[in-house]
Amino acid sequence: RRVGLLGCGRIGRLHAGLLADTPGFTVAGVADAVPEAARAVSASTGAPLMSIDEVLASPDVDTVAICTSTDTHVDLVVAAARAGKAIFCEKPLSLSLAEVDRALAAVEAAGVPFMVGFNRRFDPGHASVRDAVRKGEVGDLHVLRITSRDPAPPPPAYVAVSGGMFLDMVIHDFDMAGFIVASPVVEVYARGAVRVDPLIGQAGDIDTAVTMLVHEDGTLTTIDNSREAVYGFDQRIEAFGSGGVAVSDNPSRHAGWRRTAEATIGQPLPWFFLERYHESYRREWVAFHDYVVGGGDSPSGTDAVRSCTAIALAAGLSLREGRPVRVDEIG
Amino acid sequence: RRVGLLGCGRIGRLHAGLLADTPGFTVAGVADAVPEAARAVSASTGAPLMSIDEVLASPDVDTVAICTSTDTHVDLVVAAARAGKAIFCEKPLSLSLAEVDRALAAVEAAGVPFMVGFNRRFDPGHASVRDAVRKGEVGDLHVLRITSRDPAPPPPAYVAVSGGMFLDMVIHDFDMAGFIVASPVVEVYARGAVRVDPLIGQAGDIDTAVTMLVHEDGTLTTIDNSREAVYGFDQRIEAFGSGGVAVSDNPSRHAGWRRTAEATIGQPLPWFFLERYHESYRREWVAFHDYVVGGGDSPSGTDAVRSCTAIALAAGLSLREGRPVRVDEIG
Amino acid sequence: RRVGLLGCGRIGRLHAGLLADTPGFTVAGVADAVPEAARAVSASTGAPLMSIDEVLASPDVDTVAICTSTDTHVDLVVAAARAGKAIFCEKPLSLSLAEVDRALAAVEAAGVPFMVGFNRRFDPGHASVRDAVRKGEVGDLHVLRITSRDPAPPPPAYVAVSGGMFLDMVIHDFDMAGFIVASPVVEVYARGAVRVDPLIGQAGDIDTAVTMLVHEDGTLTTIDNSREAVYGFDQRIEAFGSGGVAVSDNPSRHAGWRRTAEATIGQPLPWFFLERYHESYRREWVAFHDYVVGGGDSPSGTDAVRSCTAIALAAGLSLREGRPVRVDEIG
Amino acid sequence: RRVGLLGCGRIGRLHAGLLADTPGFTVAGVADAVPEAARAVSASTGAPLMSIDEVLASPDVDTVAICTSTDTHVDLVVAAARAGKAIFCEKPLSLSLAEVDRALAAVEAAGVPFMVGFNRRFDPGHASVRDAVRKGEVGDLHVLRITSRDPAPPPPAYVAVSGGMFLDMVIHDFDMAGFIVASPVVEVYARGAVRVDPLIGQAGDIDTAVTMLVHEDGTLTTIDNSREAVYGFDQRIEAFGSGGVAVSDNPSRHAGWRRTAEATIGQPLPWFFLERYHESYRREWVAFHDYVVGGGDSPSGTDAVRSCTAIALAAGLSLREGRPVRVDEIG
Repeated sequence: RRVGLLGCGRIGRLHAGLLADTPGFTVAGVADAVPEAARAVSASTGAPLMSIDEVLASPDVDTVAICTSTDTHVDLVVAAARAGKAIFCEKPLSLSLAEVDRALAAVEAAGVPFMVGFNRRFDPGHASVRDAVRKGEVGDLHVLRITSRDPAPPPPAYVAVSGGMFLDMVIHDFDMAGFIVASPVVEVYARGAVRVDPLIGQAGDIDTAVTMLVHEDGTLTTIDNSREAVYGFDQRIEAFGSGGVAVSDNPSRHAGWRRTAEATIGQPLPWFFLERYHESYRREWVAFHDYVVGGGDSPSGTDAVRSCTAIALAAGLSLREGRPVRVDEIG
Repeated sequence: RRVGLLGCGRIGRLHAGLLADTPGFTVAGVADAVPEAARAVSASTGAPLMSIDEVLASPDVDTVAICTSTDTHVDLVVAAARAGKAIFCEKPLSLSLAEVDRALAAVEAAGVPFMVGFNRRFDPGHASVRDAVRKGEVGDLHVLRITSRDPAPPPPAYVAVSGGMFLDMVIHDFDMAGFIVASPVVEVYARGAVRVDPLIGQAGDIDTAVTMLVHEDGTLTTIDNSREAVYGFDQRIEAFGSGGVAVSDNPSRHAGWRRTAEATIGQPLPWFFLERYHESYRREWVAFHDYVVGGGDSPSGTDAVRSCTAIALAAGLSLREGRPVRVDEIG
Repeated sequence: RRVGLLGCGRIGRLHAGLLADTPGFTVAGVADAVPEAARAVSASTGAPLMSIDEVLASPDVDTVAICTSTDTHVDLVVAAARAGKAIFCEKPLSLSLAEVDRALAAVEAAGVPFMVGFNRRFDPGHASVRDAVRKGEVGDLHVLRITSRDPAPPPPAYVAVSGGMFLDMVIHDFDMAGFIVASPVVEVYARGAVRVDPLIGQAGDIDTAVTMLVHEDGTLTTIDNSREAVYGFDQRIEAFGSGGVAVSDNPSRHAGWRRTAEATIGQPLPWFFLERYHESYRREWVAFHDYVVGGGDSPSGTDAVRSCTAIALAAGLSLREGRPVRVDEIG
Repeated sequence: RRVGLLGCGRIGRLHAGLLADTPGFTVAGVADAVPEAARAVSASTGAPLMSIDEVLASPDVDTVAICTSTDTHVDLVVAAARAGKAIFCEKPLSLSLAEVDRALAAVEAAGVPFMVGFNRRFDPGHASVRDAVRKGEVGDLHVLRITSRDPAPPPPAYVAVSGGMFLDMVIHDFDMAGFIVASPVVEVYARGAVRVDPLIGQAGDIDTAVTMLVHEDGTLTTIDNSREAVYGFDQRIEAFGSGGVAVSDNPSRHAGWRRTAEATIGQPLPWFFLERYHESYRREWVAFHDYVVGGGDSPSGTDAVRSCTAIALAAGLSLREGRPVRVDEIG
């Protein structure tokens, strides 16, 4: 597959390197509004520099990877779908459910492969929880418990345009709830606080959140989030049911530790998202390749995107109004 | 101290044995409405068999341990307080806040030492979390996360008179929230389901619950509970804050495990509450002794009892009405 | 069973308490050369104070627990065997193989139940390793690896009469090798050093040792020991074979820990042998009771005692002569 | 630095990929006696295909990476040293101490940077043990304990030319002993067995070994090895001393696990050496670059190579003669 890379910022550069290491993909063109960014990726991949329009029009490109800023995602998805390209798009697709629907409609009309970059689905630990649930190894699922804490908060300037903590960060966890629990979410209750950085509060957002999801079949999901865990990336999932429990715990930085008369002393957690999630990013592209080439359901397709966006918007409404919100209130 | 033991059922027998092993305590009298139960404990402790009234009137008894059924607790606390005895009472004190207040008023009027049996406060792991929080080792507290799952559900007949899952079981976790978080709980939101046993539902109760507490200072507590974890007693606490995280994890049954080509295989958790919480019961009596003899604040006194009862009642109301409930609605 | 307790020092007092808690045993007499020691145990158990001869002659005593100093063990075993008592004897039986043989001959002649106090056989973790080996869960056994480190060294005065590190301390590990590996030890190579306390060296002993055992079938056992691990009781066993590995790891003091930006910080290990091995002592008496009442092979009988003593003596000879020593050189 | 890669087999291809990812290195020429092997690496790196002589003579190459078969290492090191190239050579340098000395003499005469590929020194866990020892965090070192088990045995044909288990496999662990313990090894005692595969025995080698090293200052090192651990790569190091213990444990494959009524079930270990040691290989090249560019002592230089080879030969002699062997017997 010949991939046109749209967007050469931090995440675009990451994907350029990953694509080069994934058998079956060649970067066939790179584009970015910032010429230096595009030039650097062009140099490291050997792929020609193009404009976005040239990528979309190029017969040498059959697949696009959309890594631009969030506000451009929908228009690019629509254009790429019309151009008949297979589409990989970074999350979130959009901060507006109407816009999400516009993009998904274009994808469905064109019948092109489409996958959104919910990379955590491909983390071996998280995937092992889903596998255990789907195989019945935890029996009937009763409670899903997710903890997701970033090592450091984003700059307040980013927060202001991020769509808020639920759409920007917790959306990964809403996706995990959908990925692991077969039954859809029907109700959301969220509480949040500004505990990490007052500037995040001044930017109109929260930095600490607890969310409760009620699924149609009665399964309960509880999620707690923070923008700053000083000890590193803290990402855990636990699926509890009638037959037992399946857990995705934190990996350690390395397996060295020591013990003295006072304490047993080990490492904190990995701090950098690439250190923590490198394997998930690598496997994400393998999954995308298998899907584009082999067909079948998208590893994280239109249903996942729409559902997560609606839950995130419901969480925001719940927080603002101080009440449980049904997902179908969102539309 | 010379202890009159009121109630010689399962928990009374347990405490009789613990009292015998705690320096400073002598069982000086035992009473139970069921004569055989009292006789057995009298035989094992060597303490004389008495009626409850005789215990309360005996000048040879300066302390009572109330281990009778919940519906008798308040009357016995009131009578013991009037008799000037130091009082240890099993949880819950009562299913009614008005009754709780009546008991606490009698205790305060008499000025007698009073402690309720929230034994988990004395578990070394749980206590280490509180210590870490109080010493500032986790910085400002942001989120408290509690999981509490029993190994097997009680009989539906017990459920019917238990006061419900929140007052009977989750009250321990509400106590942990008060024990660890300095700021009081102002709001409760609870969701529950019947997932373990339909007979529990027919008895008017739930067996699976997720509760969210908002503390006055913005700290958020999330609790998840189940009446049945087939893999054993699952009791964990995690206090997350600006400086890090403190955790009380599950102890293992023993430290043996093995590894094959397929898996690493260890033990499930302890199943029996005495195996899991023996150390906490032992330390509970030491703490009670130190308090009765040395004075100071009760290790789990009137404030704790009232607060937990109110939170539990608020949780029940939240569940019934499907909305967040402020604790001061309860009175 | 009615037990006469011979020796009321630290280990005697321990066993008195354990016997009181083990169904089926009653302490029926206590004796010690130091009258105050005996009186204290008599008071706590309610058993009559006797001389050793009175215990051995008493028709009210059918079982003896020999907890006196090592140099008296053989004579007491011989006398108790002649008196027809079931015998529990603390380890080591004797520092001399000839003396061990004299005791074992008397036991065999009398046909009385006999068990030596190798309590580690009853530790749930260690026992799980043996169970895994015996069930074939590790396949053919290739290597057994034992680490055994005490939290603090004994006083040099004790060291001088202890028989040396191999007979006093490592004998437990030689017993573990026999307990877990079916094939007998044929060769021993030992190296040692004085690293913990020069006074131990002046007393003619070592405080640090590494021992290698070759079993008849080619299985290799490696043992490392220290008289002082400042972080607590460090006792681990690992059985490696063609099918996997079974491990008895260290239990923790409790399951609380915390994580900061710098480190993950947990507890050191239990320091006190009773904290570490309480469960093994408790189970030891249950096993002794089952054996005395139910018959069958001794849980740690004459073969184990003789074999461990010979290995310990071979280790001492290897250390002195700087060469591997065959166990049959010892006689 | 411009690197000429000599040898394009499995390990050569690995290093080609690692060099491409290490800032500061460019592969400037590749050579292999098998043209197809060299061509493949030439294609993937873009480096010109050369003969070995051309690499050594090329002014465009300032550094060589020797990844050819062991029997060619010494001649290539000598030639590269004479050509003034900085030298990275895979382990083992040679199966003969005289040959090792010949190579090291050439390196020293030429004064070129030289490093042998003891990659485990760069494993973060293993390195943390050395750091703890060197910083005094374990106090005076008393015992070093190493376990090193491969996931699967090499083919018997390889075994026959490998130089034997000590030179081929355990040499990594002898290097770890030298890396972590400051005091040199003076005596070696080894025992081995054929337990994994009789064909290995027929090839004149063993597949299971236990080795004991005595260091000059009395520190004792114990090493146990197997050619086959069915549960994966098992590589652990433990440094025990007066102040505590530092451990490099096994990393897990991922952090997912589950618990049922019967057991807690996790992953076995990584099976593939690249999965296990990828980070160490990556850091090895960074360390080599820092050394070649920045000067100072080699991260694993001539002393390490000579010492490990002598210990491995002493271990072989000990095994054959059944006695402890002093390292200075080897010459």
